Amino acid sequence: MAVTSITTTFNSGMNFTANVNGHKIEIDTDEAGGGNNIGTRPKALMLASLAGCTGLDVVNMLNKMRVSFSDLSIKVDAHLTDTEPTVYDEVTVNYSIKVSKEDESKVEKAVNLSQDKYCGVTKMFESFAKVNHTINYL
Amino acid sequence: MAVTSITTTFNSGMNFTANVNGHKIEIDTDEAGGGNNIGTRPKALMLASLAGCTGLDVVNMLNKMRVSFSDLSIKVDAHLTDTEPTVYDEVTVNYSIKVSKEDESKVEKAVNLSQDKYCGVTKMFESFAKVNHTINYL
Repeated sequence: MAVTSITTTFNSGMNFTANVNGHKIEIDTDEAGGGNNIGTRPKALMLASLAGCTGLDVVNMLNKMRVSFSDLSIKVDAHLTDTEPTVYDEVTVNYSIKVSKEDESKVEKAVNLSQDKYCGVTKMFESFAKVNHTINYL
Repeated sequence: MAVTSITTTFNSGMNFTANVNGHKIEIDTDEAGGGNNIGTRPKALMLASLAGCTGLDVVNMLNKMRVSFSDLSIKVDAHLTDTEPTVYDEVTVNYSIKVSKEDESKVEKAVNLSQDKYCGVTKMFESFAKVNHTINYL
């Protein structure tokens, strides 16, 4: 049975420190929320999770396909509902990458395989949000 | 329209840096996954998001109820499915806190309100996982 555990410890104000795989992540609200912006808002960590998950998939597949690339970045734009509790209901994953023209179809293949098959975080997001994606060739 | 955006940039190997609300979070796989464990696994960030979201709710409510507390931490244990793509299908949020005996009912109220009403991350998790919680009084 595979279980992942993380611990988050309260410091003061609105600041928590999460320990994830031995790495510390600071969580805090902004001043309007009573905090000091020492760290990220917690909900937005969901979006970093999504971008990282699909990003690793794409790097893995491009390496296997021996595609040379540079300047890979992934921007996630997530729309929040208006009513409490606010949840993400539509998310767009925007991939930017520099590859040779003849490798663009391989990038599309890698992105589609990640979004449709490999990325567990995308799959979880699809339970509560519409997930779109775009690819921008630099 | 409220949109949250985050950007994740590929560095090298399996390492990405996410920029979330101006704060940097390193993402990497472990050595078995071809990375160097420079940062967290991306999927586990979902659990930090959940712990931080409900943690902020509980601190907010305990402050409003004028409850003195210390040693608050939140451990999240998440079961992963066996088949790819692996997703979390059962999650337990374990709150630990030190309060006076007479304030324990207020802690329970705060935790229940967060889990049932206020925490948007819990609501998103409930779309794909069973979400349980426990409270441990120190």
